[in-house]
Amino acid sequence: MKKLYGIMPPIVTPFVNGELAIDKLEFNINKWNKTELSGYVVMGSNGESVFLTREEKLKLVEAAKKFSSENKLIIAGTGSDSIKETIALTNDAAERGADFALVLTPSFYKSEMKHASYVKYFTMAADAVKIPVIIYNVPKFTGVDIEVETVAELSAHPNIAGIKNSSENSRQNTEFVSNTKKDFAVIVGTASMIFPGITCGAAGGIVALANIAPNECVQIQKLIENGKLNEALELQQKMIPVNKAVTAKYGVAGLKAAMDMLGYFGGEPRAPLSGLADPDKENIKKILAHAGLV
Amino acid sequence: MKKLYGIMPPIVTPFVNGELAIDKLEFNINKWNKTELSGYVVMGSNGESVFLTREEKLKLVEAAKKFSSENKLIIAGTGSDSIKETIALTNDAAERGADFALVLTPSFYKSEMKHASYVKYFTMAADAVKIPVIIYNVPKFTGVDIEVETVAELSAHPNIAGIKNSSENSRQNTEFVSNTKKDFAVIVGTASMIFPGITCGAAGGIVALANIAPNECVQIQKLIENGKLNEALELQQKMIPVNKAVTAKYGVAGLKAAMDMLGYFGGEPRAPLSGLADPDKENIKKILAHAGLV
Amino acid sequence: MKKLYGIMPPIVTPFVNGELAIDKLEFNINKWNKTELSGYVVMGSNGESVFLTREEKLKLVEAAKKFSSENKLIIAGTGSDSIKETIALTNDAAERGADFALVLTPSFYKSEMKHASYVKYFTMAADAVKIPVIIYNVPKFTGVDIEVETVAELSAHPNIAGIKNSSENSRQNTEFVSNTKKDFAVIVGTASMIFPGITCGAAGGIVALANIAPNECVQIQKLIENGKLNEALELQQKMIPVNKAVTAKYGVAGLKAAMDMLGYFGGEPRAPLSGLADPDKENIKKILAHAGLV
Amino acid sequence: MKKLYGIMPPIVTPFVNGELAIDKLEFNINKWNKTELSGYVVMGSNGESVFLTREEKLKLVEAAKKFSSENKLIIAGTGSDSIKETIALTNDAAERGADFALVLTPSFYKSEMKHASYVKYFTMAADAVKIPVIIYNVPKFTGVDIEVETVAELSAHPNIAGIKNSSENSRQNTEFVSNTKKDFAVIVGTASMIFPGITCGAAGGIVALANIAPNECVQIQKLIENGKLNEALELQQKMIPVNKAVTAKYGVAGLKAAMDMLGYFGGEPRAPLSGLADPDKENIKKILAHAGLV
Repeated sequence: MKKLYGIMPPIVTPFVNGELAIDKLEFNINKWNKTELSGYVVMGSNGESVFLTREEKLKLVEAAKKFSSENKLIIAGTGSDSIKETIALTNDAAERGADFALVLTPSFYKSEMKHASYVKYFTMAADAVKIPVIIYNVPKFTGVDIEVETVAELSAHPNIAGIKNSSENSRQNTEFVSNTKKDFAVIVGTASMIFPGITCGAAGGIVALANIAPNECVQIQKLIENGKLNEALELQQKMIPVNKAVTAKYGVAGLKAAMDMLGYFGGEPRAPLSGLADPDKENIKKILAHAGLV
Repeated sequence: MKKLYGIMPPIVTPFVNGELAIDKLEFNINKWNKTELSGYVVMGSNGESVFLTREEKLKLVEAAKKFSSENKLIIAGTGSDSIKETIALTNDAAERGADFALVLTPSFYKSEMKHASYVKYFTMAADAVKIPVIIYNVPKFTGVDIEVETVAELSAHPNIAGIKNSSENSRQNTEFVSNTKKDFAVIVGTASMIFPGITCGAAGGIVALANIAPNECVQIQKLIENGKLNEALELQQKMIPVNKAVTAKYGVAGLKAAMDMLGYFGGEPRAPLSGLADPDKENIKKILAHAGLV
Repeated sequence: MKKLYGIMPPIVTPFVNGELAIDKLEFNINKWNKTELSGYVVMGSNGESVFLTREEKLKLVEAAKKFSSENKLIIAGTGSDSIKETIALTNDAAERGADFALVLTPSFYKSEMKHASYVKYFTMAADAVKIPVIIYNVPKFTGVDIEVETVAELSAHPNIAGIKNSSENSRQNTEFVSNTKKDFAVIVGTASMIFPGITCGAAGGIVALANIAPNECVQIQKLIENGKLNEALELQQKMIPVNKAVTAKYGVAGLKAAMDMLGYFGGEPRAPLSGLADPDKENIKKILAHAGLV
Repeated sequence: MKKLYGIMPPIVTPFVNGELAIDKLEFNINKWNKTELSGYVVMGSNGESVFLTREEKLKLVEAAKKFSSENKLIIAGTGSDSIKETIALTNDAAERGADFALVLTPSFYKSEMKHASYVKYFTMAADAVKIPVIIYNVPKFTGVDIEVETVAELSAHPNIAGIKNSSENSRQNTEFVSNTKKDFAVIVGTASMIFPGITCGAAGGIVALANIAPNECVQIQKLIENGKLNEALELQQKMIPVNKAVTAKYGVAGLKAAMDMLGYFGGEPRAPLSGLADPDKENIKKILAHAGLV
């Protein structure tokens, strides 16, 4: 199994006139290839995965694999409430080059998505897929939050490699680390948590901000690993306002607008989301400037 | 456009060894055909729609159309966050005989699923599909709640026929009725709300309980329409404990267990859900007996 | 025990320069005395109870009793998490003329405020106070929601007279009615729920809107009792936009602004709340005009 | 102004037969006086403040001051929704020896408790009280969460000394630190957050666990300050299960049971809370043993 480690952007999916623009994806990946990012997540939350058809998803995996440099991991977001479809999509993605599957916690029947259901779901999926599974916990989108006991139990499965935890709860991250074996990777899910996550034992981050500030995100982790805590915290603090702008405040539309400002292709999100209004773009520009990114 | 009115069960999807059992569906529909149910909802929340593959969904629509008697409506649950896929699936379902599409509010990007996004989503979908759309609002599963202003605006669309509202909020139902045109159908989404919904102007109910107590559900509405309020309320009160058992308390597994007890085919839900333990089945049996259903 | 029935406003507490203005209270009560309101709730949520000192609270009860006409009930909001203080304040209010105590569900330790705690709390309180208790359930302020089973058990206590339920959940109201004895009063807690509440068996309403539209609120209940459902529903629908403006949308400040527009004394709420800005007042004026109240 | 720094327990309030037991308080404080705790919080959430009368609260402050050694801070929880009462109680507590007031965010009118209301509330309170104010943010009990912008603005007030943040959100703590002046103290509110909090710049912790494991809590902070990150994290991880048992899982009753096991006086919580059942006590004993505390 490849090593799950470091900073990886959940890459945005480029659209032109609402349709996939693979050439723009190539353009972005070429730029990211020159950084120390560990890999790319295709069909993550910031990739507008829920707006894509099955065919589009597989096309994206194929393209990402093709354009990315040798040493980068390819992680494909393949989870849905249906175990059958999750397995099928994961294996199709594996055939097209995905190294890992990022599998969202099922969440439709919220009140029944507890320990037993999650153990059953992830065990059945992990048993049947050809690439290792990363559990994806993102309460703000799913409305559910996986328990420490559940992750502890699932971490013993040989084909479950880690968890991406997008909550900002450091107690939870610390527990995920201390209740799982040493090579189970706890991955933070938002750039504001790189410093608190890595200091508590996380192995890396799958973070939207890495689309536009890959070097800074990588640098926070490196500084910590080199014992330069104060510098790491300072850089982390500098990145928080940018991260909030391209996630909580303006969402995918904000992230895409920032990409356009920073030399990447961003474009507009797919309907029903909308592109940003000009005053919001101005605001983002100011925040990027204040953080020294433009 | 056919008239959207009356009581319709979101029919359970029968599985044998985890696989679709079309013969069991036929068995159930044959029984329901003898009642005054107005139609059948295929791939609703109680149909475990989120666990089905695309192929299974279309197979179900086809089968439901084939087995149902002439005068019953066929409504297919076809919504997902992806507009593209929602349109494609709806039109495929229409070709197989669906009369209406029940389209869930998109909900992944919760904080952005507000008025503008919903107007855009439902307008684009309704413009492009061949059968009328019913908006499906179910906050307990989606974590979002559509606003009255949004429903008011969407109700003007010629291809949006109504809303299924699964919340138990009577203020909201009353507003949906008073802010939409006369032939826009407000449909309650749980059997405990038939009485309060119909008295406030709702046109019917798509309710899990109608899988096992179709006559009682139909009767509540009829009694109200005939001015027999007290009798209607009494029957409503009698049904609430049963309804709670097969929805909030035991979910789909409870509903399926009750079906088995009442002469239908229920079976077990698909993984990661589990069938009920025996003590829970005993409890359901008591509740059914207390309500006079067995 | 006096009969708990009909429409009662949770009366606003008048302040001049942030201090209690008893003369303004007299002015308002004199106007309400001429209506068919059943009584007055002092220190309810709309009375800004949480901003008052203990001394101010008792002064208010005394004044309300003094100014109200003979036949009106006086209900005092006396509940807090502390059983000791709830009992003491209730008995002090009783001495000053309160007929009933409206006792909020304790809510600080949310995860522990379940069946056993509520049975213990309300039993201990009801045992020790000299006037009957009305349970006050208001999830939007407390973040807790009392269960049907709990209300059923508490309704057997001879000194617990009813429940004010401020949620808009009609299933819940129906269950409160059908699981308690005939003379246990279920009282709706917002004017949008008068129609659905009374038709489901509620005995009345303690509703903010009755501060400014007492006759309309009383009329909805009367029409239902006289079998004029359609007229009642029509009046209910007309009142919903007004009710939303003076509760959910603009809160106490909006209610007080509307009072000033309709010949009552409203004034400003106490800090940290603020009075409304002029455009918001204009909006309220339009809503009142549209409903025929000005 | 005294320096706000280090670990302080929100001390439990001892009751015998439901009444304050000042001698038991003396017993506990005598033990804590021998540790390196920085001070004591009287009438915090773990002190069952909401169950106490005003007189009891002041008696407690007086006693805590009397029994505590010279160098320990005395912090009194004095906040309520009423500004008037908050000011009065704070000043009464100050007269009895409190060094700081811990003032809960008002929370009853949740939807209106935003930036402007909080700035108004805390400014008015801080202007009028004789001892410095610590803002107390505890979303799990209040249902509200103060914004970074609000804390940033309030931190400029000369009489607002810091914030106790009981959420487990490290992004938020990092922002509280980086958006306030250097001597504004960010204090974590639960022992599971000592490591992530202190590494992100927090000045200390007001944590339930310090009632029973004062040395361990103090030690985590010291190890970090001495650059021994790995040892600190290891100790933090060891304390998390204990902390969960005496907070999230068993609440105040669990904390009091653990105190009895560890040589302090715990006793039972006040009604409507209940003491623990024996099997729960056994479970706590095992958790304490596993962590090496017994």
